[in-house]
Amino acid sequence: MSRKIEFPLLLINFKAYREASGKRGLELAKVAEAVSKDLGVCIAVAPQLTDLMYIAQQVDIPVFSQHVDPVEPGARTGHVTLEAIKDAGAVGTILNHSEKRVRLDYITYVVKKAKELGLVTCVCATVPEETAAVAALGPTMVAIEPPELIGTGKAVSKEKPEVVTRSVDLVKKVNPEVTVLCGAGIVTGEDVAKALELGTKGVLVASGIVKAKDWRKAIEDMAKPMVPKK
Amino acid sequence: MSRKIEFPLLLINFKAYREASGKRGLELAKVAEAVSKDLGVCIAVAPQLTDLMYIAQQVDIPVFSQHVDPVEPGARTGHVTLEAIKDAGAVGTILNHSEKRVRLDYITYVVKKAKELGLVTCVCATVPEETAAVAALGPTMVAIEPPELIGTGKAVSKEKPEVVTRSVDLVKKVNPEVTVLCGAGIVTGEDVAKALELGTKGVLVASGIVKAKDWRKAIEDMAKPMVPKK
Amino acid sequence: MSRKIEFPLLLINFKAYREASGKRGLELAKVAEAVSKDLGVCIAVAPQLTDLMYIAQQVDIPVFSQHVDPVEPGARTGHVTLEAIKDAGAVGTILNHSEKRVRLDYITYVVKKAKELGLVTCVCATVPEETAAVAALGPTMVAIEPPELIGTGKAVSKEKPEVVTRSVDLVKKVNPEVTVLCGAGIVTGEDVAKALELGTKGVLVASGIVKAKDWRKAIEDMAKPMVPKK
Amino acid sequence: MSRKIEFPLLLINFKAYREASGKRGLELAKVAEAVSKDLGVCIAVAPQLTDLMYIAQQVDIPVFSQHVDPVEPGARTGHVTLEAIKDAGAVGTILNHSEKRVRLDYITYVVKKAKELGLVTCVCATVPEETAAVAALGPTMVAIEPPELIGTGKAVSKEKPEVVTRSVDLVKKVNPEVTVLCGAGIVTGEDVAKALELGTKGVLVASGIVKAKDWRKAIEDMAKPMVPKK
Repeated sequence: MSRKIEFPLLLINFKAYREASGKRGLELAKVAEAVSKDLGVCIAVAPQLTDLMYIAQQVDIPVFSQHVDPVEPGARTGHVTLEAIKDAGAVGTILNHSEKRVRLDYITYVVKKAKELGLVTCVCATVPEETAAVAALGPTMVAIEPPELIGTGKAVSKEKPEVVTRSVDLVKKVNPEVTVLCGAGIVTGEDVAKALELGTKGVLVASGIVKAKDWRKAIEDMAKPMVPKK
Repeated sequence: MSRKIEFPLLLINFKAYREASGKRGLELAKVAEAVSKDLGVCIAVAPQLTDLMYIAQQVDIPVFSQHVDPVEPGARTGHVTLEAIKDAGAVGTILNHSEKRVRLDYITYVVKKAKELGLVTCVCATVPEETAAVAALGPTMVAIEPPELIGTGKAVSKEKPEVVTRSVDLVKKVNPEVTVLCGAGIVTGEDVAKALELGTKGVLVASGIVKAKDWRKAIEDMAKPMVPKK
Repeated sequence: MSRKIEFPLLLINFKAYREASGKRGLELAKVAEAVSKDLGVCIAVAPQLTDLMYIAQQVDIPVFSQHVDPVEPGARTGHVTLEAIKDAGAVGTILNHSEKRVRLDYITYVVKKAKELGLVTCVCATVPEETAAVAALGPTMVAIEPPELIGTGKAVSKEKPEVVTRSVDLVKKVNPEVTVLCGAGIVTGEDVAKALELGTKGVLVASGIVKAKDWRKAIEDMAKPMVPKK
Repeated sequence: MSRKIEFPLLLINFKAYREASGKRGLELAKVAEAVSKDLGVCIAVAPQLTDLMYIAQQVDIPVFSQHVDPVEPGARTGHVTLEAIKDAGAVGTILNHSEKRVRLDYITYVVKKAKELGLVTCVCATVPEETAAVAALGPTMVAIEPPELIGTGKAVSKEKPEVVTRSVDLVKKVNPEVTVLCGAGIVTGEDVAKALELGTKGVLVASGIVKAKDWRKAIEDMAKPMVPKK
């Protein structure tokens, strides 16, 4: 494993959970790195914005930003540019997460600019129609996440499989080069296996890992269904 | 010098300038640290958000965030919490910079919460009435920065001295515990000396240093008027 | 009574309640007008934005906008300018309601521009420190409204009298020309009487009237304590 | 003609131009109504938000809102709901204009809710990929408007015909039920004729009419290419 994105992908979003902030964020990233190497599965982390470079400089797995602002470098106090996350060592960014929704034109801007900079984008959507809308803009990945299931432990892949398959179908029609992930409520390896069966190429997870008592066990459990069959 | 804030204060805002992003941001912070130790002047840096912990862990001067969001830690993807900047090693945050204006209630929230967490706040304002408004909320510092002078090289302390003195007077009346800084167009030691004469306790600078050809020389020039008289 | 603002003032905010939308909004404004004339009390209404001119052209009491945007007239699709509310017949605007918070610099802009246009401003605040902050900017009125009481029927004037008196005191200190109103949970004439006793010059009400079964009775009940003593 | 939308459609956006504010807004709407009846062409107007009901109650042509907020009726001070514009007499709304961009999820919400309420939606986009994205969400219309041409008098249909035809093609592929309009820089009947030739079903115009010395002449000029051939 390395910093290169491969599918299937397990993308761990640290959100603004204090359990994964600062030095504890680095610890969690290190555990993810260890499991990635052990199992041969691509595991990426999206630490808190303020920890991005600190963590990206110390692990050899792909690191994502949780968000970027649609602005050029310059006199833009408090903004996160694509150039800044690249300089920090990130491979790309999550965008439009249901906790950080953005304007349509921001998605257009970030997806286009990220490509020019060689960065990947994982744009979130809440309903299948939105995955199609996002796919039309050409991001690397679109992640379908029904917000009503986020943080519930009720996996989208089991509770609303038709939402996932409809998203996979619509994206294929609109832009087959876009990879579909799913997220929301995913806490077990079984949830992940089901997500892959439904046609996704990976999952976006957060509380299921960050809040687990045993990080290593939780990550292993979710990564196992992604181990390449021999 | 250490991570403790002292006045007069030279606060260097890296903004989203690529000249001070990632590893170059660390270099600039290291130069600031060296000058601070040499001259015995308190120099603080506000790196890009994504570099915050990376830099805060490697320098022994006060490090500020350029912005924080008014939210609690938790399921808040892409948000910067006060707890996160504290865990990253920052001593406090800039807020309401003219390039990142925030809602009045955000200032109320952040100022109050920062105090509880032992963090300092430097809240920006554009006109004297706004410095009074901000002072009423009780931040550590208020920085008066007329936006029309930002980045021009025309120092607020020379071009609009009455704006600075009126701010100093209003803040004293509304809340004498709040320290006044000024910024906008400050590029020379003379600009800084004038700012101190007008009653401020320091300056907020950005392009005057970040875009200087010789960072050390630029910082020394601005810090010298702050050297304690024997 | 006429379109001129007088104190004490009963300001009725229609919010986005459908009970007071379109033609029903006009009906409610007509009832307010009738009670105002009968009792000789200044009663103002803040209809839904889209009904502003329709209602302002048909009643002879002061009409407020619920919000304005801090922009000049021109190519600004979907924005509400101060000039537009003036052309519509409004006397001024509410700003920074807890359901429509705005940036500090927006308040600065709107308060200043409204004065130039001869319009009044009623800027909301949630805690006493914020009323002081707002007062520093010089609006016509500041309304203290603890958001946790809004819509509860538990009147701020009875549940948190110290919040009201502290606001009155702070505003007097910072800017004695600013008039203080209070709001949140006010539903009876007794709540209004108590608000006046605490030093305010009027109240900002919404659900207590809009959702009342008998609009006339509800408005009369609240307006009676405002009737001038002979 | 009546309040029913028909294609080709001439949709006149009054923006926040003071030339079309308040009573002058009503005058302009009356001129549009007169030309519509004379020529038998569907002409709709989007007055300033605060004039919406005032104008919608006095003309017999379709009236649009310039924007709506993605919220339900209720305690939402300063917000414009779909229910409010319906109660005001509007037939639908423009959304995501380049001067009032909105979040992707707002578009999803408004498009869906408008359908339930029997209202039409005209969602703007700036590049062909965005028209495809918007079309995936199923609005009544999508309007392609390159922002760099807005207000210039250089018509999109002549300056960037390939942007228009690419939008028409992409929308047809993603969702053939969505009607394509175009806008930006359109000031003459020739510009309109060219827009129809490129496959659109109408135009979105603003300054070309609002700022014209002779409103009637300007509207007639643009409406003539839309007169049904016998």
